[in-house]
Amino acid sequence: MDLPTRLEKYAELIIRKGCALEEGQELYVSAPVQTVEFTRLVVKMAYECGAKHVTVNWYDDMTSRLTYDYAAPEVFETIPAWMAERNNSLARNGAAVLDILSVDPKAMHGVDQQKRVAHIRASHKAMKEFYDSIDFGRTHWCIVGAPSEQWARQVFPRLTPDLATKRLWKAVLDTARVDADPCAAWDAHRASFDERKAWLNSQHFDRLHYEASNGTDFTIGLLPKGHWEGGGQMGADGSYFFPNIPTEEIFTSPDRTRADGIVYSALPLVHNGSMVKDFWFEFKNGRVIDFGAQEGKDVLEGILTTDENSCRLGECSLVPFDSPIRNTGILFYETLYDENASCHLAFGKGFPDCFDGGYEMSNEELLEAGVNDSATHVDFMVGTEDMNITGIREDGVEVPIFTDGNWAE
Amino acid sequence: MDLPTRLEKYAELIIRKGCALEEGQELYVSAPVQTVEFTRLVVKMAYECGAKHVTVNWYDDMTSRLTYDYAAPEVFETIPAWMAERNNSLARNGAAVLDILSVDPKAMHGVDQQKRVAHIRASHKAMKEFYDSIDFGRTHWCIVGAPSEQWARQVFPRLTPDLATKRLWKAVLDTARVDADPCAAWDAHRASFDERKAWLNSQHFDRLHYEASNGTDFTIGLLPKGHWEGGGQMGADGSYFFPNIPTEEIFTSPDRTRADGIVYSALPLVHNGSMVKDFWFEFKNGRVIDFGAQEGKDVLEGILTTDENSCRLGECSLVPFDSPIRNTGILFYETLYDENASCHLAFGKGFPDCFDGGYEMSNEELLEAGVNDSATHVDFMVGTEDMNITGIREDGVEVPIFTDGNWAE
Repeated sequence: MDLPTRLEKYAELIIRKGCALEEGQELYVSAPVQTVEFTRLVVKMAYECGAKHVTVNWYDDMTSRLTYDYAAPEVFETIPAWMAERNNSLARNGAAVLDILSVDPKAMHGVDQQKRVAHIRASHKAMKEFYDSIDFGRTHWCIVGAPSEQWARQVFPRLTPDLATKRLWKAVLDTARVDADPCAAWDAHRASFDERKAWLNSQHFDRLHYEASNGTDFTIGLLPKGHWEGGGQMGADGSYFFPNIPTEEIFTSPDRTRADGIVYSALPLVHNGSMVKDFWFEFKNGRVIDFGAQEGKDVLEGILTTDENSCRLGECSLVPFDSPIRNTGILFYETLYDENASCHLAFGKGFPDCFDGGYEMSNEELLEAGVNDSATHVDFMVGTEDMNITGIREDGVEVPIFTDGNWAE
Repeated sequence: MDLPTRLEKYAELIIRKGCALEEGQELYVSAPVQTVEFTRLVVKMAYECGAKHVTVNWYDDMTSRLTYDYAAPEVFETIPAWMAERNNSLARNGAAVLDILSVDPKAMHGVDQQKRVAHIRASHKAMKEFYDSIDFGRTHWCIVGAPSEQWARQVFPRLTPDLATKRLWKAVLDTARVDADPCAAWDAHRASFDERKAWLNSQHFDRLHYEASNGTDFTIGLLPKGHWEGGGQMGADGSYFFPNIPTEEIFTSPDRTRADGIVYSALPLVHNGSMVKDFWFEFKNGRVIDFGAQEGKDVLEGILTTDENSCRLGECSLVPFDSPIRNTGILFYETLYDENASCHLAFGKGFPDCFDGGYEMSNEELLEAGVNDSATHVDFMVGTEDMNITGIREDGVEVPIFTDGNWAE
């Protein structure tokens, strides 16, 4: 299949299965200026699927970087009212939300983390209506990737820009299962997720224990009312959408008060364009009590101090080591992909949809029940090829979940 | 001088002389996604000149076109409140406004003119605070050009895209007087404008009579309290800025009730991406009573029916036939340039700064005094190489202003 045909099928997959866009619905797209050609395809597809109106919020990381470098710290402590109202009113109008990612991995390298954290805090505060609508399943939302030359050169530094871009597009389309009938492939993907989730949920594990030869020896507590999710998400309106394309993870929100031991990173972390390499965290009673990194320790510091709960875990995800993403052999330098190459954990906000009745609870009630809440949510990869994960039930019975990096059964 | 150096000097000229940006001021930039590299230069320069914050509103004409093609007519009858508040609040905060143009001349070809007109009407209504701030000199504003490959290919269809882009950049930089010291060159440009304006204003012409071999035979009335402007503009805060780079025109707002005769176009008109060729208008008592075009008559229809005053003139501009823009020998397909190649007129909104005390008057008072008011402002070129323009004073004395397309004296 030629590239233009695959791109069109990808656009259709994004609109139909990712956003689950309905006739007469609005769509709000955030896209980097570098992805203009693919974004136009997506906008056209949205209109062909019946979108009432598509709003595109173009952005350029290098221009944002100039603002971070030059503007005074207090500029980042608020966001303009019009910008908050843009997102809040689109959510209020029932718009679906699509993020097209194509991060320039160098744009934010060395940026002032305090300004970034202040900006994220201010955005989440001012756009509470928008983020709540996403967190509580009222908004269909989807995050996808679209290669730019900058991104491709980072991934394939030895290839010509043109070849690198083609190669990265191939990887993006392969991992998104864009083949003869991508929509059917994602229906099948959903069925396989549903089977694994059913098994995990039937086990009612009290906690998981992680072990690997890199020194990881870590236990995380699960919540009695928590459950495993993965694949797509059932929105509050009863329609099924895939928030991430690709996705290979089955995840839950753990007990924010029970994480103990030490865990080592398996892959670098690229956080808003800044790089963190070879890092580790030590936990006690759910909180990070010590951490280190060969590179980018200040970025971790920024994440962990975003707010009082950003040093606790909101997500625990299971991904086999031989996932389609890992099997490309590519480090994408982008969490959307790299998190699907490896078991991971995430600091910050937990998921209402992983807690029984979570959609009907407030953030405060969820926090009280053990689901973490924070302005941030940052994944980091811990799954190695020799990782063993054991599920431990309340009665002490141990059940192997992962053996040597893959599903045990 | 190499291109990177010239681009940097151009960016500095735009910020210092175009926007006259002051320390601590905000800047609001509208830029097409195709101009990302030059726009970053401008943003960087703004911060280096002390900008407090720069907001960039990126847009893509081809994406807007998709909305025009697919969305229902009623979508264009309002604009979202957040969008109006973006512009209005930036004006309220005293932000300078910069428009970077790089129109894709084909993007809007054949677009539904009723939707366009509805959108322009809705924008002007909702963004009244923003547009009033511009019209009444409270906002420093500037419009400049930055070539994209699409624009360059339209201008130089026989060159390779790369060469065409370089050639168009050269023309843009040449016409903007970007040489060793562009800021000094624009100070000198200001002085020469001031001298000609002083002469024209001292003559107190009652009306101008235009004649050319293409059939143009046209008289336009001037206002006793009207005066000629050109070059830069003195803002309400007393600082001098250049709203257009380049600019070669000396202009006034004529009497909206006195235009009579027939006038033929000298150059094509590209209006929001749509093309109009070989057109003419017949006027009586200030109104168009008949018009025609070899191509794009529907575009003219859209302009003339935008509102009740869009069929009357708001501007009358004098530009010598051998202006630097005309001397490039290039048709730019963009009014910002092409209007500086030829004497022109404009339908729609007149200028408060061309009327004594205009800044202290409301739009309604100005209209009453003879200065046109409308949601639109569309220039069209009438100056040919054999055009004669005669100034006629109240007492009947005739003074040649233009002879054979150039200044008479």
